[in-house]
Amino acid sequence: SRSINLAVIPGDGIGQEVVAEGLKVLSAVLPQDVKLETKEYDFGAKRYHATGETLTDADLDALKKHDAILLGAIGDPGVPSGVLERGFLLKLRFAFDHHVNLRPSKLLPGVATPLAGEPQIDFVVVREGTEGPYTGNGGTIRKGTEHEVATEVSVNTAFGVERVVRDAFARAQARPRKKLALIHKNNVLTFAGHLWTNIFNKVAEEFPEVTTEYMHVDAATIYLVTQPERFDVIVTDNLFGDIITDLAAAVSGGIGVAASGNINPAGEFPSMFEPVHGSAPDIAGQGKADPTATVLSVALLLRHLGYEAEAARIDEAVSADLSERTGKPARSTSEIGDALAVRVAG
Amino acid sequence: SRSINLAVIPGDGIGQEVVAEGLKVLSAVLPQDVKLETKEYDFGAKRYHATGETLTDADLDALKKHDAILLGAIGDPGVPSGVLERGFLLKLRFAFDHHVNLRPSKLLPGVATPLAGEPQIDFVVVREGTEGPYTGNGGTIRKGTEHEVATEVSVNTAFGVERVVRDAFARAQARPRKKLALIHKNNVLTFAGHLWTNIFNKVAEEFPEVTTEYMHVDAATIYLVTQPERFDVIVTDNLFGDIITDLAAAVSGGIGVAASGNINPAGEFPSMFEPVHGSAPDIAGQGKADPTATVLSVALLLRHLGYEAEAARIDEAVSADLSERTGKPARSTSEIGDALAVRVAG
Ligand SMILES: CC(C)[C@H](C(=O)O)[C@@H](O)C(=O)O
Ligand SMILES: CC(C)[C@H](C(=O)O)[C@@H](O)C(=O)O
Repeated sequence: SRSINLAVIPGDGIGQEVVAEGLKVLSAVLPQDVKLETKEYDFGAKRYHATGETLTDADLDALKKHDAILLGAIGDPGVPSGVLERGFLLKLRFAFDHHVNLRPSKLLPGVATPLAGEPQIDFVVVREGTEGPYTGNGGTIRKGTEHEVATEVSVNTAFGVERVVRDAFARAQARPRKKLALIHKNNVLTFAGHLWTNIFNKVAEEFPEVTTEYMHVDAATIYLVTQPERFDVIVTDNLFGDIITDLAAAVSGGIGVAASGNINPAGEFPSMFEPVHGSAPDIAGQGKADPTATVLSVALLLRHLGYEAEAARIDEAVSADLSERTGKPARSTSEIGDALAVRVAG
Repeated sequence: SRSINLAVIPGDGIGQEVVAEGLKVLSAVLPQDVKLETKEYDFGAKRYHATGETLTDADLDALKKHDAILLGAIGDPGVPSGVLERGFLLKLRFAFDHHVNLRPSKLLPGVATPLAGEPQIDFVVVREGTEGPYTGNGGTIRKGTEHEVATEVSVNTAFGVERVVRDAFARAQARPRKKLALIHKNNVLTFAGHLWTNIFNKVAEEFPEVTTEYMHVDAATIYLVTQPERFDVIVTDNLFGDIITDLAAAVSGGIGVAASGNINPAGEFPSMFEPVHGSAPDIAGQGKADPTATVLSVALLLRHLGYEAEAARIDEAVSADLSERTGKPARSTSEIGDALAVRVAG
């Protein structure tokens, strides 16, 4: 009999509320024969304030035993900027080698976009997750003086770039339009840019059916608001991916519906799924948060674990729910979760 | 009697055409008593192909003698990516210490935006121009092998950050709304992020009337499409500034109307003014390019040299011209230039 052993990290702020709904929908969608086990972990600001810990070796050992991880949101204004990001979120991505950060953008019918007209948006960004300017390489000298120098080192390896580029080509190959865009800034960041571009061009030879293009990151932000239909699959560096996926989320319905996966494709470590939005402390605890991005992250999680039909049922339920929202009064977090749970079960 | 000794670099592609119109409007707007001298330089792809040179020491010595520089566009698909960018554009910015890269974004009446509704957009980005990931620090080992490692080093100094932050505060102080946003990614790029944030907070104490906020670069891209009216002055790092100013241009009428200045505020070296758009080889030589961004760059140039009234006349002429475009047939590059020249003279 099948089973899913899930680590659940609700985290801070609205993380708690949205994860509860994600689990509700997950339970509702799973067939009877699949045994769902969940274990909750208390990472985030509360644990940090209480113990000074963000993520210990013992924590990593415990998390390793799960099939996948569902995360709500980590972050709190009471914690200095960078502590939870570097100490928990990035530490986990690096420890579990989450090198494929998958962020789909699809503007669903009935969903508002800040763009004029009726843009067709349906693409997925494959963001590298373990290299680039995110490695924490760099440092500071003469800190706090007028002679301070601070550096950040973007580290890019052929190994790291090739595996994520291959992943993106395979995804593009599997989609009807079969298009892949590399986004970088190879005219300025020439060392990293040449590495990315050369590997991209080399791997392209193995995927003759995939149409490729290269675009500078600055130009990409223009296309994302003027011609978002242009994109099918995008592969890009860690930092550029961070930036353009927030923009992509904004134009395709907002971060309220943007899901993401931090994936270790070979399955050496559990992959982690989370909404793109943060902990939104201003609305936490009020039942106002939209759990849709978390529910869509559950769909990505199911797809990753091989439950394609169940993932598709969630996607359809979300589409239907969103398309019926216009003109109706706002629902609470749990009302939306209930409605989605009913739909996926039905 | 007054005089302007201008270096003119038409450059590649549409650069030639748009610069001609910029000069036309400049001549038309200047009072009789101002003597305008111009000297044209042939930098760009043609010179590179003919001689292999991009910008020599002798060129820099020649350019130094001018009061300011007007540039059209540099870039050609026949030149490997990075050669003209690093060898000319960035070399010049670094050699002439153009540390304030000024990029205003204003959505003028009658101008189309990809955003829905009627957004109010009127802000200016102060982008650092001589540090960050643009210094060319970094390198490659084991090039072309499966063990290649390429690094890019973002270099940030207290000296470099403080001067551009001060410039931005002074600009915010001089504007009616007196708002300044720092955009960075200080939760991930903690070395550089702390330097920027600490200096920003320190300088803020000297400008008590300026309202400040901090925003991560990813979140900033969301606000730029959902709440662009939120921004008044933005100060940011070289790379983030590159990215968000293209997005800013896209939402506020497109890069056809986006002007920029590469400024050395102390006047040790001539400042350079240029449209944000590139050389657009696909439409070059056809009289299809819109010279408006170049004409607005001429206004920035005049303002920088102290010709405020003339700069304002150009801004007004452009506003008037843009507001009367809707429904009219497209005009050629020189027809738009002629119309603007008539308006500023009138
Ligand atoms: C919180 C931060 C570390 C993170 C990132 O920059 O990757 C977030 O912005 C994201 O995109 O998941
Ligand atoms: C062409 C390139 C070097 C340049 C930059 O990245 O600064 C351009 O994109 C710009 O914004 O002026």
